[in-house]
Amino acid sequence: MLSPRLNVVAACLAASLSVVSGQTFQRLGTCPTLGCVLPPDQQDFLPGQQFDLRFEVHAPVNGSEAFNGGVPDEKFTATIAKDGGQPKSIAAFFNHTEPALEKWTFQWYEDLFAVDAKTPSVVNVASKIYRRIALYEPGSYTVTLKYYSGETTTATWTVRPLATQKKAKNVIFFIGDGMTTNMITAARLLAHKTVNGKYQSLLQLDKFPVLGHQMTHSIDSFLTDSANSASALYSGHKSTVNAMGVYADSSPDAYDDPKVETIVELIHRIWGSAWGAVSTAFIADATPTALTAHTRSRYNYGPLIDQALNGVQNYSWTNSGGPDAYFGGGAEQFLPGSGSYLGKDYYAEFAKKGYSVSLNKTSLLAAPNTQKALGIFCKSNLPVWLERNVFPENLKKFTNDPSGAKASATDLPGLKEMTLKAIDVLHTRGGEKGFFLMSEAASIDKQMHVLDYDRALGDLLELDDTVRATIEKLKSIGELENTLIVVSADHGHGFDVFGSADTKYLAAQKDDRTKRNAIGVYQNSGLSQYTVEHPGTSYGTGANFPVNWDPRYVIAAGLGANPDHREGYGVDKTGPRVPAATIAGKGSSDYYVNPTDQPSGFVVNGTLPTNEAQGVHSLTDVPVFAMGPCQGDFSGTFGNVDLFYKIADCLGLAHGTNKTRPCVA
Amino acid sequence: MLSPRLNVVAACLAASLSVVSGQTFQRLGTCPTLGCVLPPDQQDFLPGQQFDLRFEVHAPVNGSEAFNGGVPDEKFTATIAKDGGQPKSIAAFFNHTEPALEKWTFQWYEDLFAVDAKTPSVVNVASKIYRRIALYEPGSYTVTLKYYSGETTTATWTVRPLATQKKAKNVIFFIGDGMTTNMITAARLLAHKTVNGKYQSLLQLDKFPVLGHQMTHSIDSFLTDSANSASALYSGHKSTVNAMGVYADSSPDAYDDPKVETIVELIHRIWGSAWGAVSTAFIADATPTALTAHTRSRYNYGPLIDQALNGVQNYSWTNSGGPDAYFGGGAEQFLPGSGSYLGKDYYAEFAKKGYSVSLNKTSLLAAPNTQKALGIFCKSNLPVWLERNVFPENLKKFTNDPSGAKASATDLPGLKEMTLKAIDVLHTRGGEKGFFLMSEAASIDKQMHVLDYDRALGDLLELDDTVRATIEKLKSIGELENTLIVVSADHGHGFDVFGSADTKYLAAQKDDRTKRNAIGVYQNSGLSQYTVEHPGTSYGTGANFPVNWDPRYVIAAGLGANPDHREGYGVDKTGPRVPAATIAGKGSSDYYVNPTDQPSGFVVNGTLPTNEAQGVHSLTDVPVFAMGPCQGDFSGTFGNVDLFYKIADCLGLAHGTNKTRPCVA
Repeated sequence: MLSPRLNVVAACLAASLSVVSGQTFQRLGTCPTLGCVLPPDQQDFLPGQQFDLRFEVHAPVNGSEAFNGGVPDEKFTATIAKDGGQPKSIAAFFNHTEPALEKWTFQWYEDLFAVDAKTPSVVNVASKIYRRIALYEPGSYTVTLKYYSGETTTATWTVRPLATQKKAKNVIFFIGDGMTTNMITAARLLAHKTVNGKYQSLLQLDKFPVLGHQMTHSIDSFLTDSANSASALYSGHKSTVNAMGVYADSSPDAYDDPKVETIVELIHRIWGSAWGAVSTAFIADATPTALTAHTRSRYNYGPLIDQALNGVQNYSWTNSGGPDAYFGGGAEQFLPGSGSYLGKDYYAEFAKKGYSVSLNKTSLLAAPNTQKALGIFCKSNLPVWLERNVFPENLKKFTNDPSGAKASATDLPGLKEMTLKAIDVLHTRGGEKGFFLMSEAASIDKQMHVLDYDRALGDLLELDDTVRATIEKLKSIGELENTLIVVSADHGHGFDVFGSADTKYLAAQKDDRTKRNAIGVYQNSGLSQYTVEHPGTSYGTGANFPVNWDPRYVIAAGLGANPDHREGYGVDKTGPRVPAATIAGKGSSDYYVNPTDQPSGFVVNGTLPTNEAQGVHSLTDVPVFAMGPCQGDFSGTFGNVDLFYKIADCLGLAHGTNKTRPCVA
Repeated sequence: MLSPRLNVVAACLAASLSVVSGQTFQRLGTCPTLGCVLPPDQQDFLPGQQFDLRFEVHAPVNGSEAFNGGVPDEKFTATIAKDGGQPKSIAAFFNHTEPALEKWTFQWYEDLFAVDAKTPSVVNVASKIYRRIALYEPGSYTVTLKYYSGETTTATWTVRPLATQKKAKNVIFFIGDGMTTNMITAARLLAHKTVNGKYQSLLQLDKFPVLGHQMTHSIDSFLTDSANSASALYSGHKSTVNAMGVYADSSPDAYDDPKVETIVELIHRIWGSAWGAVSTAFIADATPTALTAHTRSRYNYGPLIDQALNGVQNYSWTNSGGPDAYFGGGAEQFLPGSGSYLGKDYYAEFAKKGYSVSLNKTSLLAAPNTQKALGIFCKSNLPVWLERNVFPENLKKFTNDPSGAKASATDLPGLKEMTLKAIDVLHTRGGEKGFFLMSEAASIDKQMHVLDYDRALGDLLELDDTVRATIEKLKSIGELENTLIVVSADHGHGFDVFGSADTKYLAAQKDDRTKRNAIGVYQNSGLSQYTVEHPGTSYGTGANFPVNWDPRYVIAAGLGANPDHREGYGVDKTGPRVPAATIAGKGSSDYYVNPTDQPSGFVVNGTLPTNEAQGVHSLTDVPVFAMGPCQGDFSGTFGNVDLFYKIADCLGLAHGTNKTRPCVA
């Protein structure tokens, strides 16, 4: 018979379990019980990959889980056992000193009714963390946390097989942020001509020999963001929305969460290869910075630039050596001031460490390939491909000069120029040690968020053109056969094209319902008019882009998830779209149709919470295109973390020893 | 210098070309000029594949293309040349008698303004057709039509390489109608449990070794329907919306259009293999009937059932021998009356030709495997998996008894039972000659059309379960290694999941805007609640289906293309959804929100023409999963017609002679 006290525990835990399992607001996503192991159950590790291990014991003070008067068990113990063998204490197994006990309090909401009622649930926590440990032998490990006199939380981990031989000298990993198969289909339609249903030319992506699908879920929600999805791709460990390079704990400190080693930290430590990141976003944005970031909050932009350059400062940690090539937007984190870490001038900080610093395309192209290279070409995100190539007059509307002058950045490289230059630098600096490059087309996602399908698809076509140019470049420097090229995404948006819209007819109708009759579905969708030359229209953008971005018959497209907005379809020539806006007197986060966006269109009321000004991500598996060494490993369907293990295997990063090069630069 | 008359011609053609290229309403989609070759430019052929060749010369009487007083050139001539060689007349090249001249008139609208103004454009036509010809030698062929004293229309055709050896004895081709990667992702989420982001079980589709993407466009519009997309998959020839097994001509006769030979006609003629079709739709629906149909109009259901049994009646044509197994819904075309061809009893017609006839699951399972088998289990489409397995009481609401009685069909097989039985019959009857089976999960599409995501995903899971059972079945009869299994779709819908919805909170809010706050995006999407057991809820549907279809937190999903409707999310327990309805006094094809559908939900106004009661198809490439002999051929991105050529190659159907078995049964 259970003691009275344990009966209470069991009943409480059973009750809390049923509540926790039925909520989308979560106390701590990876921890449905009151004892937490981070990394949690079902995680995979690369042999030798460094990580931190945190335990938390929760004592909810109030709410449906209230327990033990809000006093957490400080006497919890934990063990680890390999392949069903004898459990050892964590400190003994990892030869780690016993860490100090930590304590904190956090609060959360159990559901939307609790949010409305302003009744948070408060939780007291006792915790310990073991830092910078690793598992070297492949196999299954069981971690057991014991707490509250008889409760246990178990985590079973898998250490993947060893792989110590490099099969690819170089890896180039292209990420089309938010890119789905549906978008690729639409972009192909815009840029490539069909004759009687047969494409006369194709995307470069269409020519990849191997195709896979990648599942993108977060560790604790089925919808992901770009931070934790990038982190999964780069580290083989899923995380929580807004977190990168860590398992999110419940502590208030955004930098103390348990870390995992990333691909660039591994390749630097093990092979001393060169590495780089290129993005059309501000370079502190999630996808580029997740290569080096270890934080619960992606929004700490200034500190993340410091982490990229100098590594983790607050705890002992492996480091990436700093990027050899680092190109994108986001001058705010480099100019001295409120956006930069400790207010410092990060152009100067990078220069001090030997970087060339380029603030425009001309300077970028002239930068020496032998030197580490920083290129920051504007504030915020790079203006999109459509502005840079089709509507260049719009560039003058931005006050985004990267030097901080009140001026427009107009001498801008695109994804292609940045990527090709990065390859030059990385190939020169990596030499026989090879390189890893991540190149991100960021505004596929950013423009899908604002329902600006034209601009999103323009940037997708820029990505495809960049991949095409990259293959040519690798051929010309004799590295194509040595290089694994992977093109994928981090998540999707629920975008699709369902017909064509007759913009002339739409504009001529007077009410929302008759305007909708301008949309042609099935046979009335007709053929793409973006590939039909229009007298007087010429952009000089080459064979793989539309010859007319503004035809009478445009694609009719949409998302299942959107704010209130107006749809007139067709390209916005004045700049990126702003679909929803606040209304005076209605609150600063209550979004309605923006009356100045697509004024000839019809109103579509939203399907999202009214505090969302933009569309949101989708659930969908995203495609993976692979060519080069190990390409066959990328066929079929797999998780986003598997993409990391496949790349790490191909690079020979799975070592059974604490492999560190004799001399780390 | 051009003669004055030719100047006029050239000017008119130039003017008409610019108009034609800018319109979604098309005079004849494959014919932008006034001279038409069908099959048109850029078409591919399997060596030896039989087809008809039609020429049309158009004389528009009025409208922007008005020409030659509306008198078509009856003296047109046509030639064909191989690989740039000497052109020969069509009759001489194909050893075909010169066909008689045909003449007709048709009309069309140039755009929506013309529709509103009721000003059709009228066209007079002169035409000839050469029937049942074939090209036996691989290579490039140029067909030239000359008309109006100097105008020419050229079609370049490619005859694919020979492939005369069978690499697969059997082919099973599963079609998830309308199925996209996005839907597969959502179905996996509903039926398979994750622990900290790691799936504990997977779909059968996830285990396929090879993945491809298939482009679905029609020959003359970028959005396809299930008729011409199925036809492309089965024949290697794209067609026009609503057409199957033909290139759509402009004549009023729906049965005289130029035909192409299909996979089952080829496999019957060349190898004498058995073949079958299984569908959860009415069996005269496009996807099953396109295997044997040759018509401009998919809606001629009665005649299409006759074509399936007896082949083409009005012109000499190869035939399929009739299906060996034919299972689905659609008793309307079998019961004597207005739905059947010539009012005949097609149960009797099939029985006369030696078929066993089953009208329920019990009878189906007992039918002899040695005999050809017909199984028609209800009127219209089969009730969906969710009705058959989770809400069986809803079955009683249908008056769909296949015998014509005013009763409900309740002894219903599912896709799995029909498919496994078909394999038994085909394996027995095909013997060493092997078999071809098409098995369709039809209501993925049908339920996406009515925005009933639960029912669509239920049928997707039924498809996956059927594929799983099929692999087991093939193993058990020793045929797995001999069988190519391909799972794909014919087109998509722009469906995606973008969060979760708290149905309790949603129902408790009073207005449309606050209801939307029930939707949780990103981290608030949480984990799938469909895999969490709910006390008192048990369907007995097995490991690969949700354990709770009605959790508090459901997926929030949607389409970019929809009619006015109400969204409350969550499963409709009363039966399939009817999102939009007409309103008294507003016209019979003017659709508004259906007030009885999801009454607790919020209103979403549509993005489609108001005469659309349902969602429509999307543009997206769809996935192709392959395993078995030739599986490697299905990797990467390709057109829907390529799927036919890949299967035909694997079956050795590409012959350089008019291969016909000595004795056709």
